[in-house]
Amino acid sequence: MEGGRVFLVGAGPGSAGLLTLRAVECLQRADFVLYDQLVPLRLLRFAPQAEKKCVSDIPGCHPERWPLIHQTMIDVARQGRVVVRLKGGDPMVFGRGGEEAEALWQAGVPFEIVPGVTAALGAASFAGIPLTHRQHASAVAFMTGHEQPNKTDSMLDWSALARFPGTLVFYMGLARLEDLSRALIQHGKDPATPAALVS
Amino acid sequence: MEGGRVFLVGAGPGSAGLLTLRAVECLQRADFVLYDQLVPLRLLRFAPQAEKKCVSDIPGCHPERWPLIHQTMIDVARQGRVVVRLKGGDPMVFGRGGEEAEALWQAGVPFEIVPGVTAALGAASFAGIPLTHRQHASAVAFMTGHEQPNKTDSMLDWSALARFPGTLVFYMGLARLEDLSRALIQHGKDPATPAALVS
Repeated sequence: MEGGRVFLVGAGPGSAGLLTLRAVECLQRADFVLYDQLVPLRLLRFAPQAEKKCVSDIPGCHPERWPLIHQTMIDVARQGRVVVRLKGGDPMVFGRGGEEAEALWQAGVPFEIVPGVTAALGAASFAGIPLTHRQHASAVAFMTGHEQPNKTDSMLDWSALARFPGTLVFYMGLARLEDLSRALIQHGKDPATPAALVS
Repeated sequence: MEGGRVFLVGAGPGSAGLLTLRAVECLQRADFVLYDQLVPLRLLRFAPQAEKKCVSDIPGCHPERWPLIHQTMIDVARQGRVVVRLKGGDPMVFGRGGEEAEALWQAGVPFEIVPGVTAALGAASFAGIPLTHRQHASAVAFMTGHEQPNKTDSMLDWSALARFPGTLVFYMGLARLEDLSRALIQHGKDPATPAALVS
């Protein structure tokens, strides 16, 4: 029997084919899978024997729920069980994977982080749009579209973003599409810059 | 028999466990695998029956070789064979995947792009360093370290990069580490900014 531990696993953008072999291996070994709401249920078939729980079933709403998510992983691992914390995309890009890893580290629970195909990569491949290109973009940036451009304490420096020398990718930007575009243009981005919306 | 086609497949950062299920499926179906020099040979075991060729075996040096790489894929696919073009990391992040897709599209050869775990994600997970973090970085940017910071026609706007509101990841930056750090600091980046080198 292996000891209790946690695998923080990136599930990729949703297609089962975009799980990594390591992610499948972790799911097959799991006794307990704690999965994000955005993870499609079909991915859970790789862990038929595991107990499964969606983070949205943990009581409380968004900010207060987080310590309970951490505590759930820690408690189950301390029972000697193998936990997979299945997160959409990649665990280290948005989605608080860093904070979850920190909580496990502080609790002394062994863990491993398994990277995944983050949404920008999936969207680029399926849409056929390269994120970098020798002639057009020698860099690419991922931002969260949840930041409010007109918020005075916004962590995003819009004039630096408008001048960013490459492709800009906003995650979860649909609801704020107009605000984001306006903020970039106001800060100097050429309104003729080609743009795509991938959903 | 399926018709000739090309799969532009991201091989991930090197570990076989970080291949996607779809990448393995494509390799298993391949008649011909054209792989990048940086792709570890152990990944080719998923295509035991395929003819294999490394792009470095194509005559010519770096820039002149590219049209021959395109032509090789096109010629083999037109023979009715299934080609996997296996590229390190993700096909749409650096590495000219966009140009290869464009060449296939112009030649009328059916193709599919399979995203992969790009190096920055692999490095972040293995090093335990989140690329974004609610308190520290609401964005992340990937740049190539091959750009010369002192080149006057550099596509990189260093003052915009120095002000970028998040984590900066330089790919292939080891050889120019000092130049890159100096350029960022000269353009206003705090010299006390935490940095990590992952190889």
